[in-house]
Amino acid sequence: MAEASRKLVIDKSDGKTLRSVPDSVAVEEPLEIQIVSGTASGAAARSISVTMRTPGNDEELAVGFLFTEGIVTSPDQVVSVSPAGRPGKPSGEQNIVRVEIAPDVDLDLGRLERHFYTTSSCGVCGKATLDALYVTGCASLSDETTVFPSAILLALPEQVRERQSVFQSTGGLHAAAAFGPDGTIDVVREDVGRHNATDKVIGAMLAAGALPGRGKGLFVSGRASFELMQKALVAGIPVLAAVGAPSSLAVDTAEEFGMTLVGFLRDGGFNVYAGRERIG
Amino acid sequence: MAEASRKLVIDKSDGKTLRSVPDSVAVEEPLEIQIVSGTASGAAARSISVTMRTPGNDEELAVGFLFTEGIVTSPDQVVSVSPAGRPGKPSGEQNIVRVEIAPDVDLDLGRLERHFYTTSSCGVCGKATLDALYVTGCASLSDETTVFPSAILLALPEQVRERQSVFQSTGGLHAAAAFGPDGTIDVVREDVGRHNATDKVIGAMLAAGALPGRGKGLFVSGRASFELMQKALVAGIPVLAAVGAPSSLAVDTAEEFGMTLVGFLRDGGFNVYAGRERIG
Repeated sequence: MAEASRKLVIDKSDGKTLRSVPDSVAVEEPLEIQIVSGTASGAAARSISVTMRTPGNDEELAVGFLFTEGIVTSPDQVVSVSPAGRPGKPSGEQNIVRVEIAPDVDLDLGRLERHFYTTSSCGVCGKATLDALYVTGCASLSDETTVFPSAILLALPEQVRERQSVFQSTGGLHAAAAFGPDGTIDVVREDVGRHNATDKVIGAMLAAGALPGRGKGLFVSGRASFELMQKALVAGIPVLAAVGAPSSLAVDTAEEFGMTLVGFLRDGGFNVYAGRERIG
Repeated sequence: MAEASRKLVIDKSDGKTLRSVPDSVAVEEPLEIQIVSGTASGAAARSISVTMRTPGNDEELAVGFLFTEGIVTSPDQVVSVSPAGRPGKPSGEQNIVRVEIAPDVDLDLGRLERHFYTTSSCGVCGKATLDALYVTGCASLSDETTVFPSAILLALPEQVRERQSVFQSTGGLHAAAAFGPDGTIDVVREDVGRHNATDKVIGAMLAAGALPGRGKGLFVSGRASFELMQKALVAGIPVLAAVGAPSSLAVDTAEEFGMTLVGFLRDGGFNVYAGRERIG
């Protein structure tokens, strides 16, 4: 079992005095994602990414990352996922995940190195960034008409927090969750990074055959950036609900691709930045 | 002048009804960082990074990024910094920054592609990540003995927020700031990303001849990750004070390199995770 938090002794100030108290912090460790293509024995593993993550659900994180980056597009393209490498110090975790990809998959690794955000017509800008999503095969979700009642949204932060085991002890982890219009929470994952927590959720959904996530919503504990909207879009999830503020490009993405974007979901209220028709 | 926020109309819920109200969101746009080496006319510009940032102080962001990544190590290595490319749509901003590097600088661009977090002795893990910092030339800051009074730290969040012009209207921007032990705020920068806000501050300090930042502290509005500790360390700033929670690897970095790490700096209190001797 991965250690997602670590105990330590800190000095705590109440504004007047400092005193030593026991505390916990969320674990952050690098994870290397490797892929092996084909079934030929002895095929070399290629390292494609190192991300700083909280140990736990590493296989979901790796597969979710490969999916949201467009490297794999369906669960049957993933032959196996396994931890690799010597256990790291000091966590004792294996910090490599090796993903074996089906031999008939044409791996477009150049995709990871090219700039997603550039088009020849207008260079690098927000509009070009949205255009690039079309190029990578993203389609509008505007035909998806599931309605999410306001009361369901308002209950999400508390419901997700109750299921965040590590946040309770550290106060330091982001959460992402997939939810349904009846308030069902399908999956909750935690990580020091919002994008990792989101990749873990999407990786779990892919493994469960739950993608594309039509009729579902994605909850994130922090702010709504372009990157998170992109991940929801690639996963076919039409609703993103964030505890924090959205960026301009997150709003643009939602409008361009017929998605619903909810922000500032906290303290008994929320803002709808796009896709008002899905909020009941 | 860069547009750092954008007005729009949203639907706001108070938990009971939705009504249309005017609002603002923080602008997020891609920025491409290019470098040109040498003085030969017609030297090709090489693209080394695309980051999603809030427009404004782009030159500082580019130079700060090059410095914290170890590509340049002193201000005299930067010959010029200038915006480039056609104005992007819809912001009207130029979204390329071109940095001309002195011809005698041996550019180690492989550094950006290699894994910082791996050593041959133990593979990829937290300990290896810290070891890699030594390899890149980082030295302990334990001989730096400036003391920061608790009252100065406690006042930081409010002082920084007062200077955050865009946060006021959007609630959606991270801030980073350099401060002194007497409470002086030297520089405040905003961005949708904490790492970008931090690179802007460090880029401004580099341009002002204020690096290494011995005797200074770095304030960040969010959580304290390894990446932020690394940036403070490269800049020679011995104290990092974060509004949010630190990660385990942030604590490890502070302990390994003789730095002070303060977290949960809010609501009239804070926690000291390392380097207690600098807190007065």
